[in-house]
Amino acid sequence: MPFPMPLRGVVPPVLTPLTPAGEVDLPSARRLTEHLVAAGVHGLFALGSSGEAAYLTDAQRRTVLEAVVDTAAGRVPVLAGVIDITTARVRDRAADAVRAGADALVATAPFYTRTHPVEIADHYRRVRGAADLPLFAYDIPAAVHTRLPRDVVLRLATEGTLAGLKDSSGDDGSIRRLLVELRHRSPGFCVLTGSELTVDGALLAGADGVVPGLGNVDAHGYVRLHAAARAGDWAAARAEQDRLATLFELTEAGDPAAMGPSSSALGAFKAAVHLQGLIDCPATAAPQVPLDAAAVERVRARLVGAGLL
Amino acid sequence: MPFPMPLRGVVPPVLTPLTPAGEVDLPSARRLTEHLVAAGVHGLFALGSSGEAAYLTDAQRRTVLEAVVDTAAGRVPVLAGVIDITTARVRDRAADAVRAGADALVATAPFYTRTHPVEIADHYRRVRGAADLPLFAYDIPAAVHTRLPRDVVLRLATEGTLAGLKDSSGDDGSIRRLLVELRHRSPGFCVLTGSELTVDGALLAGADGVVPGLGNVDAHGYVRLHAAARAGDWAAARAEQDRLATLFELTEAGDPAAMGPSSSALGAFKAAVHLQGLIDCPATAAPQVPLDAAAVERVRARLVGAGLL
Amino acid sequence: MPFPMPLRGVVPPVLTPLTPAGEVDLPSARRLTEHLVAAGVHGLFALGSSGEAAYLTDAQRRTVLEAVVDTAAGRVPVLAGVIDITTARVRDRAADAVRAGADALVATAPFYTRTHPVEIADHYRRVRGAADLPLFAYDIPAAVHTRLPRDVVLRLATEGTLAGLKDSSGDDGSIRRLLVELRHRSPGFCVLTGSELTVDGALLAGADGVVPGLGNVDAHGYVRLHAAARAGDWAAARAEQDRLATLFELTEAGDPAAMGPSSSALGAFKAAVHLQGLIDCPATAAPQVPLDAAAVERVRARLVGAGLL
Amino acid sequence: MPFPMPLRGVVPPVLTPLTPAGEVDLPSARRLTEHLVAAGVHGLFALGSSGEAAYLTDAQRRTVLEAVVDTAAGRVPVLAGVIDITTARVRDRAADAVRAGADALVATAPFYTRTHPVEIADHYRRVRGAADLPLFAYDIPAAVHTRLPRDVVLRLATEGTLAGLKDSSGDDGSIRRLLVELRHRSPGFCVLTGSELTVDGALLAGADGVVPGLGNVDAHGYVRLHAAARAGDWAAARAEQDRLATLFELTEAGDPAAMGPSSSALGAFKAAVHLQGLIDCPATAAPQVPLDAAAVERVRARLVGAGLL
Repeated sequence: MPFPMPLRGVVPPVLTPLTPAGEVDLPSARRLTEHLVAAGVHGLFALGSSGEAAYLTDAQRRTVLEAVVDTAAGRVPVLAGVIDITTARVRDRAADAVRAGADALVATAPFYTRTHPVEIADHYRRVRGAADLPLFAYDIPAAVHTRLPRDVVLRLATEGTLAGLKDSSGDDGSIRRLLVELRHRSPGFCVLTGSELTVDGALLAGADGVVPGLGNVDAHGYVRLHAAARAGDWAAARAEQDRLATLFELTEAGDPAAMGPSSSALGAFKAAVHLQGLIDCPATAAPQVPLDAAAVERVRARLVGAGLL
Repeated sequence: MPFPMPLRGVVPPVLTPLTPAGEVDLPSARRLTEHLVAAGVHGLFALGSSGEAAYLTDAQRRTVLEAVVDTAAGRVPVLAGVIDITTARVRDRAADAVRAGADALVATAPFYTRTHPVEIADHYRRVRGAADLPLFAYDIPAAVHTRLPRDVVLRLATEGTLAGLKDSSGDDGSIRRLLVELRHRSPGFCVLTGSELTVDGALLAGADGVVPGLGNVDAHGYVRLHAAARAGDWAAARAEQDRLATLFELTEAGDPAAMGPSSSALGAFKAAVHLQGLIDCPATAAPQVPLDAAAVERVRARLVGAGLL
Repeated sequence: MPFPMPLRGVVPPVLTPLTPAGEVDLPSARRLTEHLVAAGVHGLFALGSSGEAAYLTDAQRRTVLEAVVDTAAGRVPVLAGVIDITTARVRDRAADAVRAGADALVATAPFYTRTHPVEIADHYRRVRGAADLPLFAYDIPAAVHTRLPRDVVLRLATEGTLAGLKDSSGDDGSIRRLLVELRHRSPGFCVLTGSELTVDGALLAGADGVVPGLGNVDAHGYVRLHAAARAGDWAAARAEQDRLATLFELTEAGDPAAMGPSSSALGAFKAAVHLQGLIDCPATAAPQVPLDAAAVERVRARLVGAGLL
Repeated sequence: MPFPMPLRGVVPPVLTPLTPAGEVDLPSARRLTEHLVAAGVHGLFALGSSGEAAYLTDAQRRTVLEAVVDTAAGRVPVLAGVIDITTARVRDRAADAVRAGADALVATAPFYTRTHPVEIADHYRRVRGAADLPLFAYDIPAAVHTRLPRDVVLRLATEGTLAGLKDSSGDDGSIRRLLVELRHRSPGFCVLTGSELTVDGALLAGADGVVPGLGNVDAHGYVRLHAAARAGDWAAARAEQDRLATLFELTEAGDPAAMGPSSSALGAFKAAVHLQGLIDCPATAAPQVPLDAAAVERVRARLVGAGLL
């Protein structure tokens, strides 16, 4: 499909269902994708951090992306994460994503290596040069340990290298400055926030959309929140966001003494969609610590509290 | 004055004017304070980071706090920063602030030392026990290199140790979760955001007010922003915030190769109020690198662009 | 070859020579490898950070590893880096390394994702279970942003999962504690330090060997340093280390305003071996910023000063 | 006393004994100081991190420094920490230390504020200009969250602003580079390592001495280690260091789930000297979490194992 620019709305980072043996569960992937499209989301982000892309082999990534693209069937665009360490490797991932039928690519700055703003800009130009699809920068300092400098994003936006930004920096002040500058310099550029918790404020500030991991669990909620904001009904948007902020506490279901916060959050998302019947098995990829039974009960209680079970 | 709980509105962190010799410039401190009160701010925060408290001796701190309290003259409450390394030292600073007539105290977690959530809670209880004034926690991880854990803030709020939070974490998602939980558990608790750039979103989310360093430069702008938000005119609030976000670029006036971002921002705030005639001398405290003439011209251009000169 | 346990001595992380077009330069890779073996090194570490493994595609990694293994021809063991984001991906890299004939594997903790000590231990067990070669843990917090906890290393050493540790933490105090505990609990375990600058102290403390990036530039120097330490001639070891510490300044040849420290160091290593005639082209992999002519002259001056040109 | 330059040897950071009520226990401070001098240490560092300077009020700091100076009675020089946030405040602390009779001052870079190398250099020049005593820079990034740049230290050494460096960076590679450069440019400059665990290697590398917190617990051990190194008996130095590295494990006596590593280490040092009868009460300053009885037993077991009880 021709990619809508700017993409506006709710673009969940689709979870990657796995079998108990750790392989991609294709029927569940299709079922979850269909559920999200039916809920009215405006795009899908496959192979993002919530999609456990970091844990999947290249073959597994191809498999899941093909399933999402095939199920979306052109009804909404599919953005594909091309998460890898540095430029040449990302270009290999981009080639895979093009072949699988993605509508746009989402790439981080180089990681593992220590990098430099000049290298980050060169990196995006080389990735863009290797794949003829709109390219989003993925600003996720918690993973890559580098911030995307605002002036680099602005330059790459203005010159056409980047079509958009998926911002998971959590730094809403910095995004605000970017949005104000983009309005004059590159109005078609698309800014999607990755924060589940400040979507009302981000849309008020001019962001185009949101990529909420929690959107796998309550897609309808985010679609309502987005619609209220677009209609200028900020009281309704705020109330919906507050409800979702309470639901978000399921990400802390895991025992903090026994597992990290990332395993807890991804495990809780999967437990929640499993409890909702959207996927067959709640397993996360190794070596993540799985939720124990008590944690799953905490997830269930949150779902009940939110009226989702 | 009896402290209004929760304090709502614009509470600028008052700059500390200095003479060329580095001493507190009392007439300028009084003039700037009077200007802020006349602009309609709802409180004053003396001896914060923007007030260069970190650079002032104890004697200088007492001098400037007395001037702000005396000039405010009960028209708005004065919050006093009691910035020091650990508990016993903060208690000494708190005793000074009580004597100077502050209406509330603002204290960070311990710094320099590596600390622990249990110690942070104990720290606040001991500070509160030593001074009979409302106590705000100051969450400023860029300075103290520790985040205030949300559950610690909630517990200290519920038990009455803390009256409020001055949040300079920049983590608006975390504040949102706190606001949602506080609404049920401690509705009188006061949350002030320290971010100049997301005030519309923070007020939409339920924050009580804002402590903007940039409020020294454009107090009227923040007062208008706050009023629009309180009136539910979110389009007007957003437009005012966008204008202030552009003005905020003056904080980057300094040459990044020659000075740090903090010296640039504090130097720019002081240059701006000096250009506006509100203080006599734009000097910042040693050992901060001063702005050079080209940087001051960049500040002037921003003020002209914002209609402030 | 049967892997010598513990491996003792100098194990340079072999640079990966590239053509101007960015492909692996096989003749240069063979020439450099042969030079190192002839200089008397005790092992070779292919596909480490100095080998730019982070920048190479999987195909390029296979190519260079095969060349190093083939050139070493069993005279010294070849350790192969299997640098990838998480467990399943590392297992794919390990399978490639086994096929290419590596004698041992070197794997980091998971990165990009936020991890947990329990997950790190599980990660190493799963990697070890997938490839029947001695496995070294690579502790490189500057790249993966996690320290390997000492108790995890000790447990994995004692149970036989890990054969050794390549320590690039720069935390010599922590290594000392590990060495003291290993002596009792797992005496065959091999500890190699990645620090070029404290080899005399590390060998005095009981480390088995060193993996010096600078060893590509002055292999003979490190071989002499190791021999002096083994002979108990600590004055000679210290003098050799001091000389190498001066030579190490070539890593700062690049302009710090124009490039990062990593690009400067890798560019300088390659410029140095190019100036010595050991490789045909000094190019580093994209998107690293290349050294300019002035920087190359600084490298040359250091080589002349060290008697290497 | 005229300050010996360079100071060489063992310079323990003297613990600050407290009463159960949290006041300075002067008789215990004198007893511990006398014990250290009698054990043959070469200097004393009062009001360092191990001396809990961060937790003491200015009045308490003066009291303990006077006690140490008075007890030392000119037999060994007393270095005084002047730990405070920024320049003007450090100058106030320095004036206090001069009045109390210190022989040299030890100052960190500015903290709490974000700083810049130019500001750090200016900071040290201003502190030096305010107090006519040899000035040591205290490089402790774990506390101040800034590294002292090597070129700044070299410049301040060469120009005479700094007399020495107390290095608690844990970065022995960086110290090695500094030592090599200092030998040519500023041979009288004094480098003391703060690492308890790599003293043999540091002395081999050319460091002048060591400031071991553990030296409060086993001063004789560090004096023997230093003497062996000075005599060139590196095997004996290494054996003594290995023994002390095992003893160092007492710093982890505290329950990591209930307290931070700093409280555990300081609590363990105080418990150990209390068990040895050198101080009357093992209390640490508020708000540090105290060791529980089980932790004290772990400390006792370590002392017994080391032959100190």
